[in-house]
Amino acid sequence: MLRIKFLLENKEIQVEQGENLLDGARKAGIVIDAPCNGNLSCGKCKVKIVSGKVDSASSHHISHEELEKGYVLACNTRIIEDIVVEVPTEASAFMHGMKIDDLSSERDQEIFERAKRQVLDHGMTFKSYVQKEYIEIDVPTLDDNISDWDRIKRYLRNHLGYTQVFCRLQMLRKIPGILRGSDFKVTITHIPRGKGRTTIVNMEVGDTTNRLYGIAVDIGTTSVAACLVDLYNGSLLAKASMGNAQIKYGADVINRIIFAAKGDGLQKLNDAIIYETINPLIRKMLNSAKVDKDEVIAFVAAGNTTMAHLLLGVYPDYLRREPYIPAFLRAPFIKASELEIEVNPETFLYIVPSVASYVGGDITAGVLSSGIWSVEENVLFIDLGTNGEIVFGNKDFLMTCACSAGPAFEGGEISCGMRATDGAIDRISIDRETYESQFKVIGDKKPLGICGSGIIDLISEMMICGIMDRRGKLNRDLHISRIRVDEHGIGEYILAFKEAYGMEKDLTINEVDIDNFIRAKGAIYSGASVLLSSLGMDFTMIDRVYIAGGIGNSLNIQNSIRIGMLPDIEENKFMYIGNSSLMGAYLTLMSEDGRHKLEDIANQMTYVELSVHPNYMDEFVSACFLPHTDIEMFPNVKKLLEE
Amino acid sequence: MLRIKFLLENKEIQVEQGENLLDGARKAGIVIDAPCNGNLSCGKCKVKIVSGKVDSASSHHISHEELEKGYVLACNTRIIEDIVVEVPTEASAFMHGMKIDDLSSERDQEIFERAKRQVLDHGMTFKSYVQKEYIEIDVPTLDDNISDWDRIKRYLRNHLGYTQVFCRLQMLRKIPGILRGSDFKVTITHIPRGKGRTTIVNMEVGDTTNRLYGIAVDIGTTSVAACLVDLYNGSLLAKASMGNAQIKYGADVINRIIFAAKGDGLQKLNDAIIYETINPLIRKMLNSAKVDKDEVIAFVAAGNTTMAHLLLGVYPDYLRREPYIPAFLRAPFIKASELEIEVNPETFLYIVPSVASYVGGDITAGVLSSGIWSVEENVLFIDLGTNGEIVFGNKDFLMTCACSAGPAFEGGEISCGMRATDGAIDRISIDRETYESQFKVIGDKKPLGICGSGIIDLISEMMICGIMDRRGKLNRDLHISRIRVDEHGIGEYILAFKEAYGMEKDLTINEVDIDNFIRAKGAIYSGASVLLSSLGMDFTMIDRVYIAGGIGNSLNIQNSIRIGMLPDIEENKFMYIGNSSLMGAYLTLMSEDGRHKLEDIANQMTYVELSVHPNYMDEFVSACFLPHTDIEMFPNVKKLLEE
Repeated sequence: MLRIKFLLENKEIQVEQGENLLDGARKAGIVIDAPCNGNLSCGKCKVKIVSGKVDSASSHHISHEELEKGYVLACNTRIIEDIVVEVPTEASAFMHGMKIDDLSSERDQEIFERAKRQVLDHGMTFKSYVQKEYIEIDVPTLDDNISDWDRIKRYLRNHLGYTQVFCRLQMLRKIPGILRGSDFKVTITHIPRGKGRTTIVNMEVGDTTNRLYGIAVDIGTTSVAACLVDLYNGSLLAKASMGNAQIKYGADVINRIIFAAKGDGLQKLNDAIIYETINPLIRKMLNSAKVDKDEVIAFVAAGNTTMAHLLLGVYPDYLRREPYIPAFLRAPFIKASELEIEVNPETFLYIVPSVASYVGGDITAGVLSSGIWSVEENVLFIDLGTNGEIVFGNKDFLMTCACSAGPAFEGGEISCGMRATDGAIDRISIDRETYESQFKVIGDKKPLGICGSGIIDLISEMMICGIMDRRGKLNRDLHISRIRVDEHGIGEYILAFKEAYGMEKDLTINEVDIDNFIRAKGAIYSGASVLLSSLGMDFTMIDRVYIAGGIGNSLNIQNSIRIGMLPDIEENKFMYIGNSSLMGAYLTLMSEDGRHKLEDIANQMTYVELSVHPNYMDEFVSACFLPHTDIEMFPNVKKLLEE
Repeated sequence: MLRIKFLLENKEIQVEQGENLLDGARKAGIVIDAPCNGNLSCGKCKVKIVSGKVDSASSHHISHEELEKGYVLACNTRIIEDIVVEVPTEASAFMHGMKIDDLSSERDQEIFERAKRQVLDHGMTFKSYVQKEYIEIDVPTLDDNISDWDRIKRYLRNHLGYTQVFCRLQMLRKIPGILRGSDFKVTITHIPRGKGRTTIVNMEVGDTTNRLYGIAVDIGTTSVAACLVDLYNGSLLAKASMGNAQIKYGADVINRIIFAAKGDGLQKLNDAIIYETINPLIRKMLNSAKVDKDEVIAFVAAGNTTMAHLLLGVYPDYLRREPYIPAFLRAPFIKASELEIEVNPETFLYIVPSVASYVGGDITAGVLSSGIWSVEENVLFIDLGTNGEIVFGNKDFLMTCACSAGPAFEGGEISCGMRATDGAIDRISIDRETYESQFKVIGDKKPLGICGSGIIDLISEMMICGIMDRRGKLNRDLHISRIRVDEHGIGEYILAFKEAYGMEKDLTINEVDIDNFIRAKGAIYSGASVLLSSLGMDFTMIDRVYIAGGIGNSLNIQNSIRIGMLPDIEENKFMYIGNSSLMGAYLTLMSEDGRHKLEDIANQMTYVELSVHPNYMDEFVSACFLPHTDIEMFPNVKKLLEE
């Protein structure tokens, strides 16, 4: 057996000779970002071997300089003797201190209040799908000797009008003891279903009606956010978020699906989301709010269709094979105990229904909380997460499509890209004269990379300054030190020199990155465009654009328009609405009316499959320009460029 | 550690010094009958210490002769050195080769056919609550890309008219693979519920509609009988029966309830019925019929109210405490996997509803199969099992009561008593002149004891011959060798001398036994009498008497009348209907109409609580005579006695 010591984490484990370093780190509980899951393609699992020898193949992700310093790709390295390893912040940062819209900022508070009004202003009430009732039941006598269960049913029929009352075996087993331990004064928790029907899911001694809690979760491909809710007044008792622990098995849904289909991959993904993500988040919230797990009796989760499959442990492989068929859009009735989610075992887990294979419950929930379904005006809703989903509509109709934008907005497929966490550059400007850059780093740390909003700024600024043309090619005639061309002829722009920030190498963006990003933004724009044109409409008819998702608070609308990701319409029509999926899950948790509305929304949304739409490829190709091949569609950008 | 060797079983185990011998035997898996569960009261756990010393208190159940031969009560014996033990046949026989009405004899076949007619002759059909459908679903395409689950629901809606279709998580997980492994040609197993609603519980590749099986079980306090049924044609593929493994924790329901309330007693009883009784019976039947456990998708169990509680693992202690309240009469929806019963895990376990704390689902099922609910005539139904339950009624009304007859009819509380298994004397006659006895032994073996029907014969014959008076006291003036009086003045009748059969001691019945038995028969008679009088009726108004239960085939009606257990009415009004509970469970399994009828029966039966009935005690005391204090009620017996 050999030893690996992880220097910064101060952890040591024993492994077999020849073991893969990434696998070893996972066993030690050391998180290393490896979105491509060992396919050598992403280069994110770079670690430094401080001492000891390893067997590691060379990779274009490792520069000569890095190689000399001992850097290797963990996924590509076998252990042949005792080693000491240092995991760089870039490789481990994503799981910790991730900045997620968890409703804590002032702006988030506004968004939260706005979302609540979507329900309350439309005649719906805040009454959850689970309810508590304190009941004082007649104590049995020889003359009134019906069974405990019949006695409870009689009470509910006579006092609350429920004619059909159900329970499960585990509940039945608790009844005799609790009734007699409380002198037949108990609080029941139940889930009403339709007229006169209800299911009792919990029973407690005495009056506990003031304690009724629920948890709402947004399961993103990249990050998971949750909140603990007092179901009586809707107040948020705790909030928490972290990276989706599945990320080590693949950065995007396609890689997760591929992983799920191999060996016990599905089980591993299911374990990662439940045991390594959701349950730790729940524990953290319950601890901070001093709520017992058995008091949490409602649970709503919203995620894309793949996330829903992986949460339920349902084989997802047919989602990625033509004709792209999900196993389900609406989940069956599931108890928390079936998935071992650490709330009351009898809790009914409500999974927000999906619309199609690539338009999931996160979008359904987002539509609910954004209020599109209630307005006269035409609203375009864009979720910029690991993929991009678009909804267009109003109170009369709702159309939706999925854009295969990939993970670029979260830093994926970009050499300098990273998620919007500490050390990520999220805002950039370039001086028109000197071509010098200025930027803001999240957490005011040393810059580690650039997140989605930073890349949008950078590309926009490079284009406006003339550093780059509208195809995304660097201006090689501009002889400045920030532009250089590598041995393969690929140009790159140096955003930050290593000397200035004490970094190991310069922070750069190259033409391959730019090309990847242009295709991502092009997918969003052309998706929206085709969705509108399929209705005989165009962008001028849009009254409002809501931007949701992981791209975050720092998104610069003007720059997004300039690169042709968003249409060139009045800036005041745009609004960032944060984590609309979590917000929608919250509303679903709080309001049975809201949940019914959500079901209506899922039913009503018309899915447009872009990949088979006749115009889509043309539109996409046209959109893979800055801002577009047809500059007339971006009059303001045209004016700016002509200045 | 000390060693116990069980000679005949050839098993050896290690135990701590001082361990109880009965507990040690249970650990070794050696079955020793101990109905009183170590209370020293039954004397049935008698074993022989072949070598080694033990610490054992004396007991009136062990004669001097037996003591000298090494006999001890296992429950009363501590192990202090290595020992070799011989468990006598009497103590272990009850679990093996027990003769139970399992529908195999010709007479049972008649009873079975008669029960089937109860359903079929009344417009009900043989269609089980579970059904299979072979469906060929449209294969998905890009233009028809709804989810697997929506596709199944669409088929069921369009082709079979089900508008609400449900499934559970485990089922959902199987769907994608099975659909694609079968080219979307599958057989679904489903449970229709009400109009347009159904729940899919299983899905198989291809057309398997010809294989659909169910299991019916009668869970008696003493014995458990089961049958495996082809749900398409109602044929019995296998039958099996054995002693209820709970018996080691107590012979009757009261002792079981007491045991359940101690420590992990409830768990032990639940384990005993499921793992040691029902599952072995199921395995045996599936093996012999070559049916896979996953093909068994329907399950109906009928048992008394206590048995139902113990099967479900529900705390039963309040059943025996005034005001005698069961936790439930109707069980909730339970899946086989919840109880780990070895059929298809998704199988819905239907537990036949009980009527009251001491009138259980076995009686409800018995009423269904006996057909009382369908006739004009007045029928008295008597279930002579470990207790006695009585139903009186016809198609217009059904009254029921429970008699605390105890286990006497199955040999309990009788020193020479045993269950109706090999070695039990089940028929007896005594010569009027010589007082010599003749008897029949089940299995034509050496006699070990007397079962219920034998005791009825014996008491009747002793009375008619004048060996015993009508109070049950032996005629001490009759100087014959078969009558003797012990040092306490208790008389006993010697049915068989030990020398004649090579037994260790004489086979006798004493006045205490007779007294116990008279109280048991008195409970039955007075119960029936009070039930009738509460309706302003008497025995002359009875058109038919059905006798069901463990008393068995050999019951002599004439003798039962002579001792005053059954009323003195025409013998041709009586009919033995066998294991009516198993029969009823079978009908419930086979016919959804039958199941609805069963629910009606459970709802309609009016329970009469004898213990609070003003006349009951008087009636009971009067019935504790042979045949009754008022001989005028038994004119034929009177005539006989006067001869």
